Amino acid sequence: MAVAPSVDELKKLTGYKAVDDYVKSGMVVGLGTGSTAAFAVERLGQKLSSGELSDIVAIPTSIRTKEQAESLGIPLVQLDTHPVLDVAIDGADEVDPDLNLVKGRGGALLREKMVEVQAKKFIVIVDESKLVDGLGISGAMPVEVTPFCYQFNLDRLLNLPSIKGCTAKLRMDADKPYVTDNDNYIVDLFFDTPIKDAALAASEIRSLVGIVEHGLFLGMSSAVIIAGKDGVYVKEP
Amino acid sequence: MAVAPSVDELKKLTGYKAVDDYVKSGMVVGLGTGSTAAFAVERLGQKLSSGELSDIVAIPTSIRTKEQAESLGIPLVQLDTHPVLDVAIDGADEVDPDLNLVKGRGGALLREKMVEVQAKKFIVIVDESKLVDGLGISGAMPVEVTPFCYQFNLDRLLNLPSIKGCTAKLRMDADKPYVTDNDNYIVDLFFDTPIKDAALAASEIRSLVGIVEHGLFLGMSSAVIIAGKDGVYVKEP
Repeated sequence: MAVAPSVDELKKLTGYKAVDDYVKSGMVVGLGTGSTAAFAVERLGQKLSSGELSDIVAIPTSIRTKEQAESLGIPLVQLDTHPVLDVAIDGADEVDPDLNLVKGRGGALLREKMVEVQAKKFIVIVDESKLVDGLGISGAMPVEVTPFCYQFNLDRLLNLPSIKGCTAKLRMDADKPYVTDNDNYIVDLFFDTPIKDAALAASEIRSLVGIVEHGLFLGMSSAVIIAGKDGVYVKEP
Repeated sequence: MAVAPSVDELKKLTGYKAVDDYVKSGMVVGLGTGSTAAFAVERLGQKLSSGELSDIVAIPTSIRTKEQAESLGIPLVQLDTHPVLDVAIDGADEVDPDLNLVKGRGGALLREKMVEVQAKKFIVIVDESKLVDGLGISGAMPVEVTPFCYQFNLDRLLNLPSIKGCTAKLRMDADKPYVTDNDNYIVDLFFDTPIKDAALAASEIRSLVGIVEHGLFLGMSSAVIIAGKDGVYVKEP
C-alpha cells in the first residue's frame, strides 16, 4: 500500500511542476515567498545549474527569497530594470473557487503583490488544504499598515462596512510588533464567515490613509497548481 | 508709508488667527508641519501658558512638530486614543479656487493626511503666494512610495493617463534618497500645466501597489485663511 505523501512532499510537487511547466529559457521570473514557493526556487536553481534552463533572470519578493536564490546562484534583477515578468510563481494561504487568493501570512504581501501584478502569468502553487469555499475563513487576512498610530489603523479597519464583524490583531514578533521588509506593521483580520464581497473589501481597505496594502489578491491567478491525495492538478480561471 | 509685511509676518498672521478663531478650551487639535504651521503651534503654546486656553490636547503630524510642541509644553496625544479631532491647522503648498490642496513639499504628507481627515474642521493657513488657478503648477506634487523598487514606482507614475506628461524625480537628501518619518521615499511630480482632473489623478496614483500616499488633499478644507498685501481674509468652500 502506498504511503500518503507528506505536506512537504505535496508542496515540492507543485513547486517543481510550476517551474517545469511554465519556465522557459530567456524568461524574467518572479519568485514568491514561503515554504511552497521555496521549492520552486530550489527547482529553478537546479535547472540553471544543470544547464536545462539558461538566460533566466529572477525577481525575489522578499529578503528571505533573495537570500535563497543567491545561495543557488540564480541571477537576480529588480522591477526597476525589468518591470514586466514572463511568469511569477508563489504560494497562497487561501484559494477560493474563482481562484482569488488570500496571501501574506508569511508577511511578504506588499512585495509579492508589486511583483506579481507585473507578471504576464501568475502561477499559484498550493496543497489542497489551502482551498476554501470563501476567502477569510481559514486564518488571518493580513493588512500591511504604516506603524504611525497603528491602533488607529486597526480600529478603522474594524469599522469598514464590507468587513463588519471581523476581529483584528497586530501581528507580534515575541513582545514587539512584527516589522515587514518595508518597515511597516501587519494587522491580521479574522473572520467567522467568508468575506462577502472581496472586491469591495479590497477597495474599502485600500482607501484608508495609512493602509499600505492588503492580502486579497483578486483576479490575478493565471493558473493554480494543486497537490492533493489524488495527485497534482491544475485549475484555470 | 507702511512697510509691506514680510512673508514670515504673513505666515505668522495666519497661524495666529487660526488658533485665535478656531481653537477653544477642551478641544483635540491637529498640529500641521512646516514654517506656517509652526506659528500656529507657537500661538497655541502661548495661549496654554497664559491660561487663555486650557484642557487642550494636540496631535502632531510629524516628528518635527512633535518636538516643537513638546518644547512649548503642549500636551500631546495620538490618533490611537483620540481618533476624532475638533480642528486641525496646517499650511499648504498650493490652494486652488475650490480650496483643494497640494501638500507634502515638507515631506510630512502621510501623517498630515491621516490626522487631518479625522478633523471635524480642517483650517488651512497660507500666504497669497500659495494660491493657484490649478493644482500642480507651482512646484512639486509629492508622492510617498515604498522604497522597494522606487525607480519602478516612479516609472509607473509617469505612465498614468491622468498625469501624462509630468516629470518625476526621487527626492534626495544630499546624495541619499530623502526618507520620510515613515521610512518611505518621496517621488516629486512636476507639471507644465495644471492637473486636469485631480480626483482621477488621486485615485489612479493611489491604486498602484507600492504607492503609500500622495499630496493631493481634495475636499478636505473647511476654511482657508489667506494673508496677502491687503490683509488677512478667509475663504470657505
